[in-house]
Amino acid sequence: MKYYLNPPDRILMGPGPSNVSYKVLEAQAKPVIGHLDPEFIKIMNEVADMLRLLFGTKNILTLPISATGSAGMETVCVNLLEEGDNALICVNGVFGTRMVDVAERCGANVTKLEAPWGKIIEPDNVKRALKVKKYKFVGIVHAETSTGVWQPLDEIAKIVHEAGALFVTDHVTAIGGIPVEIDKLGIDAAYAGTQKCISAPPGLSPITFNEKSIEIFSHRKKKVQSWYLDLNMIGKYWGGKERAYHHTAPISSIYGLHTALNIILEEGLSNVYKRHLTLGRALQKGLTAMGLKLFVEDEKYRLPELTSVYIPPNIDDKVVRMRLLEEFNIEIGAGLGAYAGKIWRIGLMGHTCNINNIILFLNALAIILKNLGFNCDNSDAINEVYNYIKGY
Amino acid sequence: MKYYLNPPDRILMGPGPSNVSYKVLEAQAKPVIGHLDPEFIKIMNEVADMLRLLFGTKNILTLPISATGSAGMETVCVNLLEEGDNALICVNGVFGTRMVDVAERCGANVTKLEAPWGKIIEPDNVKRALKVKKYKFVGIVHAETSTGVWQPLDEIAKIVHEAGALFVTDHVTAIGGIPVEIDKLGIDAAYAGTQKCISAPPGLSPITFNEKSIEIFSHRKKKVQSWYLDLNMIGKYWGGKERAYHHTAPISSIYGLHTALNIILEEGLSNVYKRHLTLGRALQKGLTAMGLKLFVEDEKYRLPELTSVYIPPNIDDKVVRMRLLEEFNIEIGAGLGAYAGKIWRIGLMGHTCNINNIILFLNALAIILKNLGFNCDNSDAINEVYNYIKGY
Repeated sequence: MKYYLNPPDRILMGPGPSNVSYKVLEAQAKPVIGHLDPEFIKIMNEVADMLRLLFGTKNILTLPISATGSAGMETVCVNLLEEGDNALICVNGVFGTRMVDVAERCGANVTKLEAPWGKIIEPDNVKRALKVKKYKFVGIVHAETSTGVWQPLDEIAKIVHEAGALFVTDHVTAIGGIPVEIDKLGIDAAYAGTQKCISAPPGLSPITFNEKSIEIFSHRKKKVQSWYLDLNMIGKYWGGKERAYHHTAPISSIYGLHTALNIILEEGLSNVYKRHLTLGRALQKGLTAMGLKLFVEDEKYRLPELTSVYIPPNIDDKVVRMRLLEEFNIEIGAGLGAYAGKIWRIGLMGHTCNINNIILFLNALAIILKNLGFNCDNSDAINEVYNYIKGY
Repeated sequence: MKYYLNPPDRILMGPGPSNVSYKVLEAQAKPVIGHLDPEFIKIMNEVADMLRLLFGTKNILTLPISATGSAGMETVCVNLLEEGDNALICVNGVFGTRMVDVAERCGANVTKLEAPWGKIIEPDNVKRALKVKKYKFVGIVHAETSTGVWQPLDEIAKIVHEAGALFVTDHVTAIGGIPVEIDKLGIDAAYAGTQKCISAPPGLSPITFNEKSIEIFSHRKKKVQSWYLDLNMIGKYWGGKERAYHHTAPISSIYGLHTALNIILEEGLSNVYKRHLTLGRALQKGLTAMGLKLFVEDEKYRLPELTSVYIPPNIDDKVVRMRLLEEFNIEIGAGLGAYAGKIWRIGLMGHTCNINNIILFLNALAIILKNLGFNCDNSDAINEVYNYIKGY
């Protein structure tokens, strides 16, 4: 062999990918079959069926796009937006910013509705913006991976629909971690990722479109600018009576997703959400007990699956992250944009989300921080975590 | 479990995916690590290094796009073409036709240079077309997966460069099966697939761009219309001093590709090409000996890794393909477009390309055809195959 492949066994507590169960990895080692094989079409139907449960939807057009999460974002934009369309995009982190960029590349007139990083988008501000101008499309991120903000969607959904716009939502870090309720909120189009709380490897982006959104891309003035992401064609490969060849689906990745979804549904969605909420809050209490300050001030807007925390003064970001990785095999995430070097992002997503990982991480972090001169007590923090989880 | 995942063990002799070695499948079961982990960056560098060998290039910008082959096609088009650019695209099958569609979605003025399906694009016709009009971009398919035509590229490369245009080539079904010579021919940008002769699962599309092509997308008038495929950003994630986060690479698929490339380089590229050529020609002799007619008339333009053959008169396409699949676990490909129901496409790609698969396939096909009333002799055909391979 020219090169030896020997990836280490990490504890993935960054903003994704999360750890992947051996069952999912084993599924990816099953034999590859053809993308039009009747047996594969059965698997595709089962994946779509399970995705509908996670999205909380009956939408027929629910499938994984054959590329990672950002391609899901691009899929909703290229299919729904045309040159000159007005889009209102809510921006309070990297992924809202990215949606602006993607929508502008579709030729849309984009208005940004901004909130500071770490804060939610206030429904009243959406209401005001929608009174000023008529929009076709309002985009928002449910779980901002760059900050750890949990954006409430119900009020904004009503406001957007009253204004007659499409409501488009990013659930990349939400799906499988906190409830996603496409049909209940009447969300028109949405996308997600597989490598966060679903705990499948990266490589696919689940999307779902309701009838109203399907009508829009079925009657466009111009063709969808991306051939690869054109749902007029992909829809016929994933659904319909005769499966029309479009592209070759990533067979092994679909096997992995199939197994990861099965694992989630076996645990039960409400148990999965409860596990994330309890353990996420426990980690946050542990960090606070260690004397660290959380980035998202208001607890109710803190994602349980992704916690941002300020780096203590005089502590070097990279030194800590590299020592966590090299000495303890633990990966956490760096801050992005203006918060690079200022915050860490700690994921407790899917398969990673268990009590032992919290204990290992808090101890490892405390050892390193103490070693670097930051005074903190991990035994108190661990007790705090344990008592919270047990409900004492 | 809600659904049980149990894909059958097929012999994949269609136009791709091909069979995947257990070594590659095992690699996909290795633990997922972070997309910015130093250990993963090492793996990325090794993959790029091995891809350069298969492409026959020293191009720095050589990497797998995180999506299947058609996304590779879209990557070259969206990065190199802008609104109003003149593109000449050679069309003698589905993938040339697809390139026209993709380029038009980029706003290019596309001129089609057509040849009948099953024939090559004649260099003289390219020369004539380039005298009529000034083009920025000339696109052509090296191995047409819809017909099995092996397109010679050397003469056309010279003609295109003399006319001052970019020469852009599709090697999806070529790479790892027949020699690809990017630097020798001075090809400016190219893309390929992983699920054909490389025998990794589908999900990635290797691309390579030379300095001239990099200059073009680095100095565009407008942003690349696809955020996901914008090489200005992807290049910084795969190369450069500081790895800038763009999207989350499909970790497990990269592991699989890493192993598949290792396997090819261990056999040696010249041995790999010789195996494809010998076995492909042997299969073609076997089919002819059985009384079947090959679709590509001129032997020197027949791909060894993909053979198109006419369906005998009064034989039902679907019945034969379904019986091959159900009775023998053998998948072959249907004809596309005007040749649906008229030809079959038989792949002998990568890991699938061995003598035993030829023997099994010819016997299975002969049994079914005889059973359906088409008179053919498989023992002669098998002898023909064996003698050709052994050089008797």
